[in-house]
Amino acid sequence: MKWLHKDLLDVSQLSRSEAMSLFDTAAHFQEINTRPVKKVPTLKGRSVVLFFAEPSTRTKTSFDVAAKRLSADSFSLAKSSSSLTKGETLKDTVLTLQAMAPDCIVMRHWCSGAAKFIADRLDCAVINAGDGRHAHPTQALLDGFTMFQEWGDLAGKTILILGDIKHSRVARSNVILLNKLGATVRMCAPRTLLPSTVRSWPVEVYSDLNEAVKGVNGIMCLRLQLERQKDGLLPDLREYACTYGLGPKHVELADKDVRIMHPGPMNRGVEINSELADCDRSLVLDQVANGVAMRMALLFLYMTRKGAEE
Amino acid sequence: MKWLHKDLLDVSQLSRSEAMSLFDTAAHFQEINTRPVKKVPTLKGRSVVLFFAEPSTRTKTSFDVAAKRLSADSFSLAKSSSSLTKGETLKDTVLTLQAMAPDCIVMRHWCSGAAKFIADRLDCAVINAGDGRHAHPTQALLDGFTMFQEWGDLAGKTILILGDIKHSRVARSNVILLNKLGATVRMCAPRTLLPSTVRSWPVEVYSDLNEAVKGVNGIMCLRLQLERQKDGLLPDLREYACTYGLGPKHVELADKDVRIMHPGPMNRGVEINSELADCDRSLVLDQVANGVAMRMALLFLYMTRKGAEE
Amino acid sequence: MKWLHKDLLDVSQLSRSEAMSLFDTAAHFQEINTRPVKKVPTLKGRSVVLFFAEPSTRTKTSFDVAAKRLSADSFSLAKSSSSLTKGETLKDTVLTLQAMAPDCIVMRHWCSGAAKFIADRLDCAVINAGDGRHAHPTQALLDGFTMFQEWGDLAGKTILILGDIKHSRVARSNVILLNKLGATVRMCAPRTLLPSTVRSWPVEVYSDLNEAVKGVNGIMCLRLQLERQKDGLLPDLREYACTYGLGPKHVELADKDVRIMHPGPMNRGVEINSELADCDRSLVLDQVANGVAMRMALLFLYMTRKGAEE
Repeated sequence: MKWLHKDLLDVSQLSRSEAMSLFDTAAHFQEINTRPVKKVPTLKGRSVVLFFAEPSTRTKTSFDVAAKRLSADSFSLAKSSSSLTKGETLKDTVLTLQAMAPDCIVMRHWCSGAAKFIADRLDCAVINAGDGRHAHPTQALLDGFTMFQEWGDLAGKTILILGDIKHSRVARSNVILLNKLGATVRMCAPRTLLPSTVRSWPVEVYSDLNEAVKGVNGIMCLRLQLERQKDGLLPDLREYACTYGLGPKHVELADKDVRIMHPGPMNRGVEINSELADCDRSLVLDQVANGVAMRMALLFLYMTRKGAEE
Repeated sequence: MKWLHKDLLDVSQLSRSEAMSLFDTAAHFQEINTRPVKKVPTLKGRSVVLFFAEPSTRTKTSFDVAAKRLSADSFSLAKSSSSLTKGETLKDTVLTLQAMAPDCIVMRHWCSGAAKFIADRLDCAVINAGDGRHAHPTQALLDGFTMFQEWGDLAGKTILILGDIKHSRVARSNVILLNKLGATVRMCAPRTLLPSTVRSWPVEVYSDLNEAVKGVNGIMCLRLQLERQKDGLLPDLREYACTYGLGPKHVELADKDVRIMHPGPMNRGVEINSELADCDRSLVLDQVANGVAMRMALLFLYMTRKGAEE
Repeated sequence: MKWLHKDLLDVSQLSRSEAMSLFDTAAHFQEINTRPVKKVPTLKGRSVVLFFAEPSTRTKTSFDVAAKRLSADSFSLAKSSSSLTKGETLKDTVLTLQAMAPDCIVMRHWCSGAAKFIADRLDCAVINAGDGRHAHPTQALLDGFTMFQEWGDLAGKTILILGDIKHSRVARSNVILLNKLGATVRMCAPRTLLPSTVRSWPVEVYSDLNEAVKGVNGIMCLRLQLERQKDGLLPDLREYACTYGLGPKHVELADKDVRIMHPGPMNRGVEINSELADCDRSLVLDQVANGVAMRMALLFLYMTRKGAEE
């Protein structure tokens, strides 16, 4: 099988069968991560640039671990250490990087569309690791993979996305992927944290969390971006936690085998009750571990354009 | 031989024979560092996370060099680049890292007890690279190793620890190790830079440096943390340098073969005379070089739980 | 062939034939960079410290890529993460690094002469990646290599260096190298951006850009360091762009095959017209790509002290 895409900009580019193929490839690499020596020579001599213009622990480290497990060389380019501080344009920074001939650029940027802007101008593979409020496809794919590992087929499952949907690229990419995979998506948030276009999204919108959780198979809590609070964009935290923070009483209203997810980093006691985050139903750490496997799959497929079985 | 400890939190965990075994292993790796190609495949495919929530040149670079010389992959997680800036708890940061399945986490943190907190919650090896004012076991071990290389057995030797003992995790870990190894420990500092509990420590306390140095075999100067000065916590520097800064006249009062140490970075002209730092009696650069060998030994033992001779 | 120099402090150290030998070696490594797997085991087990006390994307990443393509291990030491923030002297920082036994230190520092200061005190190779306003030899060598690849022999060619010459270590190192290679060098800048000693330089000085470009084979635009503007050291940008910014009309006055260079990062619309930067005559991206090849050549020669043909 050949992998047909040069870049991963959003999950909307992927067909259902391509997503399933990614899950299979990720499962293959997941097995490597259970070995005492978690390293294979697959991408030896290839190089990946990690270009993160916004800070990130999870995503960047996850890609770095993934690259090194595949024996690729990785180069970090953080905003502060780059010529961005000298006023260089995004285009020039990346053309500069291209001249160094990496096989892949993984990039995060605060501008929606930044990854596409770059991908259109570069020959190498570009993987979007989050662009503004637009998309975060690798997070959606690792979330989807995590649910696939729990349930197999997602058709017929109902997933609730809860919290600050308006500012969340994670929510947007998850809605698209979950729809492709046949799941029903519910959303619940205070009106000020819903995007203005939400009525055109293929989701069921709730304002009452007690209604929203009824019978759902999965609950995906979103991070409340507390750093926005100084701009007056957030509701009162205590009130928010009471009304929209996920607690044990909500879980009781959901399906008896409900699973809880969070893309991290969590604000324990705000959008999610701290014990719930650590309980048996929580997939939070599975998401992190699966993130490495999924990013190994993505680096492999986009850097070789081959399928895993070759 | 099997190495029995999962974590290195402080030197108090180690028996005298375990410390000697560490010295032997470090001597073994020291030899590698004299070769033209200073790299062995011992830990190939293993991974080490370097999690430094406080800045550090020596310790972090030393572990990084050690890891790469053993062919391990290392991942840096600095405070500023991490989700700590997003308000994530220490626990969540490290659980996240664990989900990425490293073989070892080397950590420095401003909280006393941070390394233990993490080690209790993680399956992988945790090596404390400095936690608050509590402990800095790898520094004490490299200091001990440096003295062992000079003298062989430390029994019967007298070591003076000089300077800001109150704020020094280096002093505390060294006292414990030197006692285990049979050395006599003296301390000398102005009263404001002695910990309030010093009377219960197994040391001889001096306030007069001319008395304290008499006949000692080793002098360990501590760094005066000038960044504390703005808090009014330090004495006047000029006065301090006159009274407690180590100078040539003090060295003449010590044993004729006295050796001088400093964990670095030095404030030349404050706690130590600049020429003394560079003279033949100085072991300052040996300490740095031995730091790499000791950290290779630690990574090897804690990541494989085998002894060097296997 | 043996390579005779321990350090690269400036191009003035190199004879014409040594520069040509560097170009040959760089051409050899350039070929590697066109392969699917761009990695050779040449420096396996060797280590390079990248010590950058000033921020830099291009130069640091370029050396990092070069080191990893040669299979060397590289260690980054940035100013902010180092003990420099604890007030350690440059000498102590680097002695510390030496004790870790790298094979080469690549360093950038804001002080003119910093690289020489260090090189005089260390046994390992030191490569100057820019020191104050003094020198930037690796940039000059990659620029010379880029022209050599275009034209072969540089004898008889005329190169115009345009812009902020006063603050430019790039200009200074290029003048020296271009003279050695037999090229004629012109300079054009407003008087306030010319060094006071320019009359003793082996160059032709112009104040009128229209005169300066006549018949030249190459134009090297320099970056206007906008960060200096707050100090009142820069002319009005709009006026500068009109009078000294390179535009299409200037190119028409030059040789019909004129080539345009810029060390980057560019201020498009200030010192160079944006379309010119991207046009067929522009060598800007070649410079970046050649930078990796040249730095592979430098690391190879200075770390092995052998010639490429051995």
